[in-house]
Amino acid sequence: MTRAFELAARLGLAAPVIQAPMAGVQGHALAATVCEAGGLGFIPAAMLSPEGLRAEIEALRARSSRAFGVNFFCHRNPEPDAAREQRWRQRLAPYYREYGLDPDQAPSGAMRAPFSDALAEIVEPLRPPVVSFHFGLPEAALLARVKRWGSLVMASATTVDEARWLEGRGVDVVIAQGLEAGGHRGHFLDADLTRQSGVFSLLPLVVRAVSVPVVAAGGIGDAATIAAARALGAAGVQIGSAYLKTPEATTSPLHRALLGTEAASHTAITNLFSGRPARAIVNRLMRECGPLCDEVPAFPLAPAALAPLREAAQARGCSDFSSLWAGQYAATCREAPAAQLTREFVAAWNDGAGPHAKEGT
Amino acid sequence: MTRAFELAARLGLAAPVIQAPMAGVQGHALAATVCEAGGLGFIPAAMLSPEGLRAEIEALRARSSRAFGVNFFCHRNPEPDAAREQRWRQRLAPYYREYGLDPDQAPSGAMRAPFSDALAEIVEPLRPPVVSFHFGLPEAALLARVKRWGSLVMASATTVDEARWLEGRGVDVVIAQGLEAGGHRGHFLDADLTRQSGVFSLLPLVVRAVSVPVVAAGGIGDAATIAAARALGAAGVQIGSAYLKTPEATTSPLHRALLGTEAASHTAITNLFSGRPARAIVNRLMRECGPLCDEVPAFPLAPAALAPLREAAQARGCSDFSSLWAGQYAATCREAPAAQLTREFVAAWNDGAGPHAKEGT
Repeated sequence: MTRAFELAARLGLAAPVIQAPMAGVQGHALAATVCEAGGLGFIPAAMLSPEGLRAEIEALRARSSRAFGVNFFCHRNPEPDAAREQRWRQRLAPYYREYGLDPDQAPSGAMRAPFSDALAEIVEPLRPPVVSFHFGLPEAALLARVKRWGSLVMASATTVDEARWLEGRGVDVVIAQGLEAGGHRGHFLDADLTRQSGVFSLLPLVVRAVSVPVVAAGGIGDAATIAAARALGAAGVQIGSAYLKTPEATTSPLHRALLGTEAASHTAITNLFSGRPARAIVNRLMRECGPLCDEVPAFPLAPAALAPLREAAQARGCSDFSSLWAGQYAATCREAPAAQLTREFVAAWNDGAGPHAKEGT
Repeated sequence: MTRAFELAARLGLAAPVIQAPMAGVQGHALAATVCEAGGLGFIPAAMLSPEGLRAEIEALRARSSRAFGVNFFCHRNPEPDAAREQRWRQRLAPYYREYGLDPDQAPSGAMRAPFSDALAEIVEPLRPPVVSFHFGLPEAALLARVKRWGSLVMASATTVDEARWLEGRGVDVVIAQGLEAGGHRGHFLDADLTRQSGVFSLLPLVVRAVSVPVVAAGGIGDAATIAAARALGAAGVQIGSAYLKTPEATTSPLHRALLGTEAASHTAITNLFSGRPARAIVNRLMRECGPLCDEVPAFPLAPAALAPLREAAQARGCSDFSSLWAGQYAATCREAPAAQLTREFVAAWNDGAGPHAKEGT
């Protein structure tokens, strides 16, 4: 029995096609649609309050009784650094003035929260079949609690060392996140971005290094890339950007208009929007301040001061200050219902199942 | 008839498996062995004099009558910049003193030459079946001369725009170089490294954008990665790092000892060794000065001042100042004869030929 078959069978999926959790651009509507079409839908919890998370899970459950996942971030909140916060506000001040905003009124604070006892309290009675983590894992007692209540645990690795680290702590499925992926890089053992590699190298190296199933993430969005991931030993595929133009996603109109066009072919890894490196379509803020900038407050404190600017610009139809998350394959995004895309991805996976299954992947 | 089949048939190859030209670490011995085993061997011309190039081609011809290629760089030599040269020497001065060398005696000059009329004079009567170019193309008259004498012309693209540009100028085969690749990045339209993408995204995007055959380069080194490249639409594969541990390569013992080990899993794109970005195993110079440093003289003027340091360090068994070219998959390099590796690559390609040929790739 192959690793891929185990994963799909255990969760009752038509194929191990996983919708990548994407905080801020999707919720239960996309997740439920993917679940009903035979894939694994995900609710991203990072930007939800405990009550908001409960509501999202209940809304999903009302629309689908199939397996789904909930994704949490596992960062540690940083010590506030007033000097750094001040430098960032100074950097943004000319933009504030350009939009008639008062730089002294720039807000601060965290807009993303890590997994916690409070969130575990909410989630435990709802027993999601899958829980996935980004930026490592929660502390041991909290992880043990998740495993005790029976969720399958997945977590992102961006290097072979991270994959081994996760397997050693009992993760059931490793997600190998190639640097093609949109949104936040999941690295947690080493902040050196030169250690991040393309999925074409990372995936087979991780498959060699661990014995748990390995899901490929980054640059996957059609039959050819699904077939390539299978050939490299993936036990499943996690697909994000390809869902951003579906009606079920909550992607902003400005963001949506760029996806699937040449504009989406130039992305870069930037820390400007959150404080941690993440891949987004290059826009004015990235060109003028980065894409990587030392003055940005530590994750997750960066976005607060950007929010008023982003809102003011978006109100004028301008995405100069928006985080336009997208992977390196986002020029191929199509406007199509999520159910249709999911069925295509499932069919593409299963088309490749014959010969590859024999190879024991 | 598929693009892949055309390429192999036209050149009389057992499969479109191309040995990547690697200046400084291989010559006719590796190329001839690959040719005789059914692949396309390459002579890298960038570090050869015209007479040296003639000798290499003649030596290859003496060992194989099969198709082969010659690779040229297409950079323009920069204006000398005494101030920048001086800053670089100052940067290197502490290392010079550490090795008991006189920083005032640091040499300067170019160690790599672009394709030229003088080289064309040498090559034309030898009529290599393939000529490939890196860093764009030579000027129109020189390119027309190569096409007139009948060589198949290949050139590297690192973006969709570069692929279209090359096709528009009559290139017969585009090599899509993903950022996993070892050695020099081939980009020539835009120096912004954020435009460089993983082969997993680049390859299918280039295949969609051009109608000529597209060869995949970067991160390919075994049956799984060859199958994945085919799935992404490659008409052939160009393989470099995997040949570096063969007895036929001239890779230094220090470099050889790192390939195929965990040490080779940390590479980075650096401009320190030549002045242009290239992927190498991270070593002391890269950690302490870079990997990307503004003080480095323009390509190809950087290596001269490093040469005495590299020699002195290597004499002590130390690769702190050596350019340890390697791709992101180089931790999988094996010590094996080049003929054996080539036959494995050919078999891997042909194993995948059945189902994929039907798809019309």
